[in-house]
Parts: sequence; structure tokens; C-alpha cells
Amino acid sequence: MTLQIEKSPIVGSLREPITPEGRDLLDIVTTHLPAIGAVAAENDRQGTFPAAVFEGLRKDGVMGGTVPTEFGGFGVGCMHDVALVLMKVAEADASTALALHMQLSRGLTLAYEWRRGSSVARSLAERVLRKMGTEGAVVCTGVKDAPKGGIVTTLLPAEGGGWTLSGRKTLVSLAPIATDFAIYARAHVPDGPPRYALAVLPRQSPGLTVLDNWDGLGMRASGTVDIVFDNCPIAPEDVLLREVAGERNIAILAGQTVSSIAMLGIYTGVAQAARDLAVGQLKRRGKVTSGAVRTLVAEMDARLFTLRSSVAGALAVADALAYDEVTDPAERGLQMMTPFQCAKLMVNRLAPAIVSDCLTVVGGASYSGSNPLSRLYRDVRAGGFMQPYTYPDAVDYLSGQVFGPLDEGQQG
Amino acid sequence: MTLQIEKSPIVGSLREPITPEGRDLLDIVTTHLPAIGAVAAENDRQGTFPAAVFEGLRKDGVMGGTVPTEFGGFGVGCMHDVALVLMKVAEADASTALALHMQLSRGLTLAYEWRRGSSVARSLAERVLRKMGTEGAVVCTGVKDAPKGGIVTTLLPAEGGGWTLSGRKTLVSLAPIATDFAIYARAHVPDGPPRYALAVLPRQSPGLTVLDNWDGLGMRASGTVDIVFDNCPIAPEDVLLREVAGERNIAILAGQTVSSIAMLGIYTGVAQAARDLAVGQLKRRGKVTSGAVRTLVAEMDARLFTLRSSVAGALAVADALAYDEVTDPAERGLQMMTPFQCAKLMVNRLAPAIVSDCLTVVGGASYSGSNPLSRLYRDVRAGGFMQPYTYPDAVDYLSGQVFGPLDEGQQG
Amino acid sequence: MTLQIEKSPIVGSLREPITPEGRDLLDIVTTHLPAIGAVAAENDRQGTFPAAVFEGLRKDGVMGGTVPTEFGGFGVGCMHDVALVLMKVAEADASTALALHMQLSRGLTLAYEWRRGSSVARSLAERVLRKMGTEGAVVCTGVKDAPKGGIVTTLLPAEGGGWTLSGRKTLVSLAPIATDFAIYARAHVPDGPPRYALAVLPRQSPGLTVLDNWDGLGMRASGTVDIVFDNCPIAPEDVLLREVAGERNIAILAGQTVSSIAMLGIYTGVAQAARDLAVGQLKRRGKVTSGAVRTLVAEMDARLFTLRSSVAGALAVADALAYDEVTDPAERGLQMMTPFQCAKLMVNRLAPAIVSDCLTVVGGASYSGSNPLSRLYRDVRAGGFMQPYTYPDAVDYLSGQVFGPLDEGQQG
Amino acid sequence: MTLQIEKSPIVGSLREPITPEGRDLLDIVTTHLPAIGAVAAENDRQGTFPAAVFEGLRKDGVMGGTVPTEFGGFGVGCMHDVALVLMKVAEADASTALALHMQLSRGLTLAYEWRRGSSVARSLAERVLRKMGTEGAVVCTGVKDAPKGGIVTTLLPAEGGGWTLSGRKTLVSLAPIATDFAIYARAHVPDGPPRYALAVLPRQSPGLTVLDNWDGLGMRASGTVDIVFDNCPIAPEDVLLREVAGERNIAILAGQTVSSIAMLGIYTGVAQAARDLAVGQLKRRGKVTSGAVRTLVAEMDARLFTLRSSVAGALAVADALAYDEVTDPAERGLQMMTPFQCAKLMVNRLAPAIVSDCLTVVGGASYSGSNPLSRLYRDVRAGGFMQPYTYPDAVDYLSGQVFGPLDEGQQG
Repeated sequence: MTLQIEKSPIVGSLREPITPEGRDLLDIVTTHLPAIGAVAAENDRQGTFPAAVFEGLRKDGVMGGTVPTEFGGFGVGCMHDVALVLMKVAEADASTALALHMQLSRGLTLAYEWRRGSSVARSLAERVLRKMGTEGAVVCTGVKDAPKGGIVTTLLPAEGGGWTLSGRKTLVSLAPIATDFAIYARAHVPDGPPRYALAVLPRQSPGLTVLDNWDGLGMRASGTVDIVFDNCPIAPEDVLLREVAGERNIAILAGQTVSSIAMLGIYTGVAQAARDLAVGQLKRRGKVTSGAVRTLVAEMDARLFTLRSSVAGALAVADALAYDEVTDPAERGLQMMTPFQCAKLMVNRLAPAIVSDCLTVVGGASYSGSNPLSRLYRDVRAGGFMQPYTYPDAVDYLSGQVFGPLDEGQQG
Repeated sequence: MTLQIEKSPIVGSLREPITPEGRDLLDIVTTHLPAIGAVAAENDRQGTFPAAVFEGLRKDGVMGGTVPTEFGGFGVGCMHDVALVLMKVAEADASTALALHMQLSRGLTLAYEWRRGSSVARSLAERVLRKMGTEGAVVCTGVKDAPKGGIVTTLLPAEGGGWTLSGRKTLVSLAPIATDFAIYARAHVPDGPPRYALAVLPRQSPGLTVLDNWDGLGMRASGTVDIVFDNCPIAPEDVLLREVAGERNIAILAGQTVSSIAMLGIYTGVAQAARDLAVGQLKRRGKVTSGAVRTLVAEMDARLFTLRSSVAGALAVADALAYDEVTDPAERGLQMMTPFQCAKLMVNRLAPAIVSDCLTVVGGASYSGSNPLSRLYRDVRAGGFMQPYTYPDAVDYLSGQVFGPLDEGQQG
Repeated sequence: MTLQIEKSPIVGSLREPITPEGRDLLDIVTTHLPAIGAVAAENDRQGTFPAAVFEGLRKDGVMGGTVPTEFGGFGVGCMHDVALVLMKVAEADASTALALHMQLSRGLTLAYEWRRGSSVARSLAERVLRKMGTEGAVVCTGVKDAPKGGIVTTLLPAEGGGWTLSGRKTLVSLAPIATDFAIYARAHVPDGPPRYALAVLPRQSPGLTVLDNWDGLGMRASGTVDIVFDNCPIAPEDVLLREVAGERNIAILAGQTVSSIAMLGIYTGVAQAARDLAVGQLKRRGKVTSGAVRTLVAEMDARLFTLRSSVAGALAVADALAYDEVTDPAERGLQMMTPFQCAKLMVNRLAPAIVSDCLTVVGGASYSGSNPLSRLYRDVRAGGFMQPYTYPDAVDYLSGQVFGPLDEGQQG
Repeated sequence: MTLQIEKSPIVGSLREPITPEGRDLLDIVTTHLPAIGAVAAENDRQGTFPAAVFEGLRKDGVMGGTVPTEFGGFGVGCMHDVALVLMKVAEADASTALALHMQLSRGLTLAYEWRRGSSVARSLAERVLRKMGTEGAVVCTGVKDAPKGGIVTTLLPAEGGGWTLSGRKTLVSLAPIATDFAIYARAHVPDGPPRYALAVLPRQSPGLTVLDNWDGLGMRASGTVDIVFDNCPIAPEDVLLREVAGERNIAILAGQTVSSIAMLGIYTGVAQAARDLAVGQLKRRGKVTSGAVRTLVAEMDARLFTLRSSVAGALAVADALAYDEVTDPAERGLQMMTPFQCAKLMVNRLAPAIVSDCLTVVGGASYSGSNPLSRLYRDVRAGGFMQPYTYPDAVDYLSGQVFGPLDEGQQG
């Protein structure tokens, strides 16, 4: 009950770009994949950021992939296509994909602000996008406060107008080559309650220090470091004030989805790479007759298909709703976030399982540091920690969609 | 970390028909869902076929849902839409959906033959389709020989031309109201090796007996019985000769996919129904605070999203390739079958897991024969036995795609 | 890399009785297994209690298996041995094992009361045990109030002393042949807060009705029905007053473990029976070469080994601590309950998984109502609903052991 | 439904030594655990063997832990106790446990030879054991030929009697401090077919080179390197000739079990350490209210219990049968190996799952190279590659026990 074929086509969704811009970007990125893959092992070992790879990507305009054409970019606005690009990059090196995601995601969200935001937001977004599209700006986003010290990154009003930024952000990928930073902070507004804010500042800002402190289990070449801010001055027009701190705002779910959903491509790429490596290593050894190996490989392909279908399904919803002007923003946010979280939960389960089974079918050789599967085993585990959401938060979010939230005292 | 919303929208693919014909069919079927659901429990208990339900469906033309409009049918050719209709029916009663699948699947494959087959095939297909579209014919397919007796169902040349059919088919759903049967048999061709063949014959044929022997663990109202053929005479034009028996023919994979892939909607519907029942029963009890229950429900929704995405992904490939005239038929068959099998393997894992978790969160009440979850627990397990393929055969198929087949002596 | 052997020994723990009394009981029970198995299918189909089987067991003294020899019983006090006996019975018929568990468990807990309880408890226990050991009493325990009506079963002080019992208990297995009932109720004590209580009353009590309302998904021959109490009079000495209602009392965990842990043998037996049936059916078909089938069977045996080891491990702790006079009772209760719950959680996961895989390897034949695997698929699912605890409660208990309990407002 | 307790006792088997010798050895090893744990992180990072730790263990006699007292050792012959010691060491550092296992396992198998072997075997075993017990010999076993070059390690008859050894062994843990090597080789016997053989030779042997080439994904401090043999001379009495090469010999299964089963303790220890680290980190953060975290921790404890029970169950069988003189050696081998493989398969599934869930509940902090959980995530994955058997071979072995082996052409 088996049929012979010559080739084993990759099945499942997330195969072809949907937009012409996406096709163009993918074509150019494809020419860089050999170079990306060639340095992956050594950069992983040393924990070194692949600066030369990114210089090449920048020269070819890839760093402006999601910057609108109006500002000199490729103009890819389709999240599916961004995820597909990241998937292909991740098949060569997951760290590079994670770092690239930082820049492409920033372009997506700024373009989203530029199209849908307030006039202040549009103005700031336009300035930054133009810098990304024409001056080679590399913009890193800092979301998470560093646990060290436990301080909330804060904007204080500066004398004479403007602000000063102080604090420490962690897990800022791509930072080694960043020219600018977009930092989430709590702003102490003079006459009113503290508000969430986004501040953009150049790397040369006085008081800004980029650390070299990344030491991850995996994703070791992603340049994911801490940034320290010590009274960095920021002009008024470079700060976007948002909702009052502490208030729930489900409208932001749409923006969070736009910012983060393409990362699902990264972990899909890791799983696909592991599968292809394992199958390749097995085939080189000759006829595969072990019933257990054949069973695991069949399971692997079925799960990979499922993973790709789920990711594509969530991206399709996100792309359909991101610029939908009809739906209520809050409802739209939920409709985008829920499929994203469903797909993310399954990716974080299936991708590591696929990689682990790849090690099993290849055997002890895969446990060597020189076998790329051992890198993928470490890289793939990062997916569970990406925001939004970690597993416990995803459970709260998804069950909250069904039953309503637990009261404060009842939840994590 | 939880957000409140008013409603809990069903997320994931397989939500809306793609074609206008599909929309029309779904709209009509929707009006029958209350009646279908109303008799589900009692028919399950008694193992009774819902003849009145099907009479209603027939009157409204649903039994010609996949018959081309040229022959008086609804003309739904989109497998996605057929799967969606079956999913909605299965949410009301899985047995009804399984029986209905028999007829809708037959329409799909006959229309496929009518469009792509040999002239003999086209002629036979046209006759049967016309009968289905205008005379209310209900056509059941018999694929599997009954293990009782271990006899291969066989066509022997009859004196004076034509054939006689003898043997016994099992697992023929919908048979209680069948007007005609399409039976796979081995034909002893006078001058040549035995060939596979399809024979169509009316229920009134001399020597044909419809048994009443269904006693399944689940799907108890699907009228899935054995049919006995004792020298039934068949006219020459009612037999389609196919490939030489014993030869592998991967071109038939496309037809098998067309014939069977919509069944994935059935098990998706069972899982969705179980989830909705469980959530409904939980909500009626008041605030759900158990961490384990909330975790299981979040997992359930993520898995349901994945299941729907996978099924939709496989259907999209099948719909895209079914009438593709460019691709080599064999290659096309593989490209359709592989996603189908990947999705089926995951459906057969995820759907029973979802239903079982539904029982867990509802608790002991779900173990009562009067709780519909106990029926779904039995019904959903049928998915693993549907052809093509069972789990062992799917593993052989999928691993054969990767590594090539095992030699005869090496496989199951 | 495979070695040939003649036989396939059952591996894992839970193979041999530990005590001579356990050996004697097992030997006698073994002689009844063919009779038990012979009527299993038909009783399952009809939902009929195997009264003749139990008459046979009673004649041979099995119903007094756990009654101390002082009172005419076999004197089996080792929970491991009781679980082993139930496992062997469940291999023949799970319903019979579940019903027998009711009686053997009652003997164990009464013997436990007789050895460790208050003087009132000892006196009552002695009377009931003597009746079980010498007069053939069959004592059913009613724990769970019937959801119908939502009434708490209650003891009210009767005029002239004693009590009257009113309410309705559900899920009382073995009830069709019960001679006496041990009922948990809330007692309205004249001068004080309500207290938990255990009341023992004969079947002939005025106002007591044994319903015939069992209709389970599985365990259909276990005679698991509701009992209605309408002002049943009970003598003062037949009521044991316990802790104040609503108070937590971890000392009772030891008694709950003694009462319920042997049930783990039942689901172990179901899984073992399914495995043996599946392997037997496969072997009868000839050489098994399917890689998927061989993989599933290897997994099955590994999981069965694990299941048996876990159950044996939990029983070993329970047997060691049940009569330990040194350890603080509360601490002892936790030390017994925690392994029991760990093993139960894994049994409720692994046993259904094993049975489901048995259906998979056997194929469609197993889905027929006449194949015993279809009964085991239904029976095995009962395990998740047995007290203590269901899955959500087990998660609360086990996580509470690690982190302390959630506050009232935080938990289920 | 939660109960408060003060402490969270470790539940499950594998808690206390069974023999007095085991107790003594554990007590001494316990004093070294802080030192072992203190250097674990740095040695992992650098891939450095903890030579000072082993010097300390040697001084206290731990390296003679399984050497019979007759020869100056601790005389621990109970595999359960050896596994328990390795588990405790692995809780501090898995690499150290893996290296220590090499020596303790060698003592066990030599003592087994000394008690059960041929006179030649007894004599050689006695000499090596005496050297281990009184002279501080550290004996490493080389089983697996290095894939580099693909050469079978071979013994050729030397001129003037004796042998010369040539080849290359890989995955020889503990080698940095080995004084002697026990090498499996194929011996070209002058007048007869090639035979399997074991050769013992000192580190100073001419032609012997210990490489420094370990670079594992995990177990990085275990000193697991390649050893090259270039015409090393070996005296006749230092070679044990065994069965004819290529012949199946199930009698050796008993010896393989004795040699390897204690390693299950290592992976149990890794899982236990991960669980304790995760729970500790969670508790330090304050009240744990997340339903998902509490659910995962409950699952973790249940699986850890199961894992410990399974390992203890397999060890109990091995200890009972290792010196059983009654059972047929081949049958005994199977009876020891089957539970070992069942437990190993489950350990290799449950231990990595537990560690991965520990990362999930701790969150992103666990992904840092400085968090010990990231080391455990890598270390625990080694279990799947330990011999006997890897997963595909275990499936062949276990399914072969049930169905008989596949023919040569049918298997892996």
C-alpha cells in the first residue's frame, strides 16, 4: 500500500507569496539564503551577530521590505508574505530570521500607524519609515523591561519641553546594528495619570548604551541584548502618548497581531528545516526500512502540514482584518488575536515535537554540536517565550474569550 | 491578562461557502438541521436510519446537491462547500452526515467522471447523474468486500453479453433508502487479465439483498449495512472497466480524493459540536474558575482551530487540482492525496482528543447515555476507519512519498 | 535487531498477590472468570446486571473477600491484592469488577474503621462486617447526591431518638443485589452545626427505593443506579457522626484512599484486556509487517508496563501507610492520596490511549458492537469520573500540594 | 477542593536504598553533591570534564562503589541502589552522573562476570576488579565504533601470542581520567570464524590515543570522547572471546541490562531537578494563580511519579533476575530486557516532556544560558540515544517480543 514517486513535494500552505511585492522581496531574499546558512553554525557557536549578512540584506533593500513604496521601501504589507520570507530565512538560520523580524515587523506596524493612526502618530511614523526606506535606518523595538533592577522604563517631562527616558529593556534582537530604537515606556504626564507611550530615539542619544549580554539557549546569533537608558533626551514629536497606564485596551490587539504574527513563519521554518535535514541524512544512509522511523516521518509530515495550515489560516484572518474599516476596532482586535493565539499555541507544541522526532530518527549523530539539528533543537524552543503570549497567558486569553475573564484575585 | 468580550465567535476556516451553489445548498440544509438534531439521540439508541429526515432532504433537492445543474442538481462541485455542508449536518447528527456523504460524494465523483472520463464513463455518469437529479435516485457505493466468507466481489461475463455480479459488500451507508448501487468488483474479462470495474445496478435487481445488519459502536443511525449479490445481471453499458487488477495506479488517487475528502467535514463537525455542548453545559453551571477546565478549553479551541485550518488547507488543494488539466494525472493524484492524508491523520487524532476532553470538563454527567457527548464520543471514533486510509496505510503512503515504498516482503 | 521468543510474558508489576489471603481470594475468583466473561457482551448490550455471576461469587465467599477472618471473611486487607483481583475480573468484564469493587471496598473501609475508629465506629463496623462475613450481606455505598432535584441527602433527628434519612444518591453500583446501604449524609444535629455522617440501613427500610435507571456510555452491567430515601427511619447506633460539615479534614484522605485506590486495578485490567484482544486478533491474521502497527504495539506494551508500575507504586505506599500508627494522620492521608492521584491521573490518560490504539491496529472490525474492543472503548472512559478525584479536582489537589491552595475566590 | 500542607514531599519510588552497601555509598556520594553542583554550569559551558570532582569521589572510594568488598570496593550489587546514586548525582549534574555511570556499570558487569562467567572470564574480571578496588583504576568501556572511517575495531593475532587491537571507539564517557579501557572488538581467531571479544588494556598502551573531541548538545562535561587504537598489543589473558560474530545471542541481554539499566536513574534525576528548580523559581515569585501553570505542575508531578515508578519497576525485575540461577539464561535475558526497554521508552518520552514544561512554567528566564533549566533541556535529550536501545531499535525489540522478528529484508 505504497506508491512510488520521484520527488517529495513540500505540501501545505505558506508556499507562495500572495502579493507581487511579496514575490519581489522573497526573490531577493532567496539570493541571500546560501550566505545566511553558511555562517549559521559558527555564529551560533560564538553567539555572534551576522553583521555582514545584514549588510548584504540592507544593500539589497531587504531592510525596507515592509516600508511603503512611498518612502522608498518594497511596500510589502501582506503579513502572509512577510511570514513566508521569514520562514525561508529561518530554514537557513533561525537567528537571522528573528533579527530580521524585528525590522520587518517595525515596518509593518509603522505603516499601520501611518494608515490608521492619529495625526501625531502618522507624522512620526512617516519620518521613521522614510528613514528606514531611504537612509538605511534599522529600528529595534524594546518592549520588555529587564528584570534586573525591576525598574519600569519611564519618560519624565524634561525642562524646556520634551522628555527624558530612563530604564532598561531586554530581549532587543537586532540591536548590534540598530540605528534607532522604538521604546515602550510609561510617561509621567504633567497633568494627568501616567500613560503608555512609544518613544523613538537614535542610537547616538546621550545616555543610551547597547549591551552585549545575550547568552541564550538558542537563537544565539540574533543579537538579542539589553539596552540601557540613562536620562536620554527625546524631542516632543518623537513620543507617542497612548492609553492611560493600567487600563485594558483591546483595540491594541490588532496592532499587536500586526506586529508579531509573522514570527510564526520563523518556527515553521525551523521545523521544516529539521524535517528536511533529517530526511536527507536518512536517505544518504540508504533504504529506510525501520517501521518506527517510517511511522515518525509520516507523523512528522502530517504535523508539518497541520502547522503550515494553521499558520496560514491565522495569517489570512490577520491580513483580511488589518485594514478592514468596517469592523469595530476592539472586535477586530479579538478576531485577529484569537486565531493568532490558536496557531501560536499549536506551533509551540508541534514545531518542537517535529524537531525532537527528527533527532530521534537520525539518532546519536544529531546530538553532536556540529550537527545542525542540535542547533534547531535549541532554536525552536524560543517560540514558547515570544509575546504575545506565553502559554499561561495564552490560556488566560483563550479561556477568557469563552468564559469571560477571571476576576483579578482569580488569575495569574 | 484576560479580555472580556460579549460573544465567542467560532474561529478558523471552514466557515463560509466559497461558491454560490454551495451557499444555496447550505442555506437549504440549514433549514433541516433542527429536524436532523431532534431525532439523533433516539435513532442512535435504536440503530434506526432517519428515513423521514432523508425524505425531507430529498424533497428539497439536497440529494442532488452535487449533481450538475445540467442534470437537475444544485451543481455544487466545490469540495470545500460539500465538506462545510457535511460539517453543519454532523454538528446536528454525525450519522446523518455520514449517510448524506455517500450520496454527495457519489455526485462529485460521477460529475468528475462526466467531465474527465472516457466516453463510456461519461455516458454512464450522465445517465446516473440525470437519474439522481431528476428522479430522486439515491446511489450507494460499495467498496469494501465483507470479511464474512472472504470472497472477492466479482463480475463474470454473462451469456448473451453483459455481466453477472456476485459477492458481498460491507459498510454501505445510506443503503436503507438506496435506489441504486455503484459496486466495485473484479471483472473476469474474457480475453485478458482480471480488471477492476465499477458496476451500477438498481436495488430491484434479481439476486440483490440489502441486509439490516449494522451494529456499530457509533454512527448507529447511518444505515451502514451489507449488500449481498447473487448472480445479479448487469447490462454491458452499466459496467466501467478500469485498470488491470493488482496494478498500482496512482492516477486513481485524484478520484479517491474527490470521492472521500469531504468526509473530513463530518469529524470536524463532531468535534465542534462536542466543544459547543461542553462549553454550553459549563456556562449553565455558572462561573468557570477551575484552572484545569480553563486550560483544557483553551487547548480545545486551539486544536479545533488547527483541525479546521488543516481540513480547509487540504480541501483547497483538492479543489484547485481536481479540474487542473495541466498537471500530469499521476502527479496530480499525489498532490491531492498527500494533503488529504496529512489532514485526515491529524483529524483522526485531534477530533477524538477534543471530544474526550469535552467529557473531562463536563464530568460524570457526560458519561450518561442520555448526554449527547456520550454519542459523540462513539461517533467520532469512526473517522480512523474511513478509507482512504486507515492509520497503518496512511503511514505507508506518507512514508512511501518520502522514502519510496518498501518492497512487498517488507510491508503491511 | 529483533529477537525471537516463544511466548510473550506479561511484564510489569501487579502480577502476583503479596499476601496468602490475597492468593486464596485470587485463586477462587480465577475459577469464576470464564463465567464472568461469558455473559459480558450480552449484559453490556442489555444493560443487565449479572446477578447469577454474583450469586456464584457470593457462594464461594468472594463477597466477603475483604471482611476480616474474625467475622467470617477471607481477610484480605492488602489493597494491592484487592486491586489485582479486580484487575483480573476486569480483564473478563469491567462492569463486574466495578460492582465487585463496591463490596470489597466497603469491607476494606469497615475493617479500617474497626481497627482505627472510635468505639462507636468500631461497634457499627463490627456489626456490618459480621453480617457481610456470615450472612451474605451485600453493602452498597452511596456518596454522590443525585443532581436531579439538587437536594442534599439529609439525616434529621427522629422523634423518640434515632434519625430519618431523606434524599437521593446516584451512581450506586451493585445496587440490584444490595442487602444494605451505607449512605453519606448531612446530619442536622440538635445542638450544634450540621455534621457529615454515615448511615447504614437495610434495603427493606420503609421509604427506600432502588431505581433501575442506569444508562451509561459504558460499565453498563454494573448495576449503577439511583437510590431514593423518603424519611427512612434509622436507629441511633447505625449512624456515625463525623466532622462538622464544610470543614476541611485532611485526615479523611487516608480513608478515601483505602476506599478507592483498588479501583485502579479495574482500568489496568481493561487496558490489558484490550491489548491482549488486539494482539490476538492481529496474530490470527498472520504475519504482522506494518511498521505503524508494530510501532503502536511496542508503544502499547511500554505504556502498559508504565501503567502497571504506577498503580503498583501507589498501592505499595497505601498498603505501607494504612496501618502505620506513627505518622500523623493528616500527613499520612496526604502521603497516601498524592501517589494515588498521580497514578490515577496517568491511568486515566494511558488506559484510554491504549484501548484506542488497540482499535487502530485492529481496524474497522473493532468498531462493530460485537467486537469486545468496542465495549472496552466505552468502559475504559469511566475511569476519569471516579472519585476521588476527577481531573479538575486532581489538578487542584496536586497543585495545592505544591503551591498551597488557591483562595476560595480563586478556585473551582 | 485543595488542601494545605507545609511541605511537598517527593513522592514515588526510587527514594531509599535497598541494601546497606547502597546506603553507605549514597551517604558518601551525598557529601559530594554540593561540589558537583557548584561546577556544573561552568563545565557545561566550557565542555570541561570535572576532574577535581572525580578525584574527590575516588579518594572516598566511590569509584569502587560496585566493586565487590572482596576486592576492596563498596560491594554495591543492587542495580536499584546504583540507579538511586546516579539519580542523586544527576540532580546536581547530569554529566557527572553519566561519567560516573561508566565506572559503576563496569564494576557491576565485571562482578557479574566474576560470579557467573567462565574461568577465563572470572580470572580477568577478578584482576580488573582488584585494580579498581585497591589501585584506583578507572575503567572505561568502548562499545560503539566511530563512524569516522567506518572501520570495525579489530583484534588480530600477534606474532608470539596475544593480540593487537586497531580501530576507533566513540562516545567513551569518563575517558579523560581513565586508567584502563575495556573495548569490544571483533577478533580474527586463527582457526575459525570471527568472534566478538572484550579486550582490556591500560591507557599507557603503545598506539592508544585518547582524543579530546567531545562537543555534544548536552552532557558536555561528561568527557565523552573517541579513543584510537593503532596496533595496540594485548596479552592473551586480557582478551575474552565471546560468541561467533553475527550470531544472535539473547543470553547477552541479561548482561546488557546489568550494564546499562542504572542509567535510567540519570534521566530521572534530570527530570526531578528540573521540576524542583521550576517550582522553586515559581515560589520565589509569589502566589501562583495561573490555571495553566498549576495544571502543568500537577501534570509534571503525576508524570514524575510515573517515571519513578516505571524505573523502579524495571530495576526490581533486573535485581531479582540478575543472579537467579534457575531461569534459563536466554529467557532470563528477555525477562530483564523487556521491562528495561519499556521503562526506558517512557523515560525518554516523559523526562524531556517534564523538562520542557518546566521551561514553559518558568517562562523566558529559563531560556537564558545562565539558567540551569537550559542545561537540563539539553542534557535530558541524551537519554534517547543511550544503548540499548534507541527508539527504532526498541520498537523492533518490543514488537519482536510480541509478533516475532521481521525477516532480514523486512527490518531496520
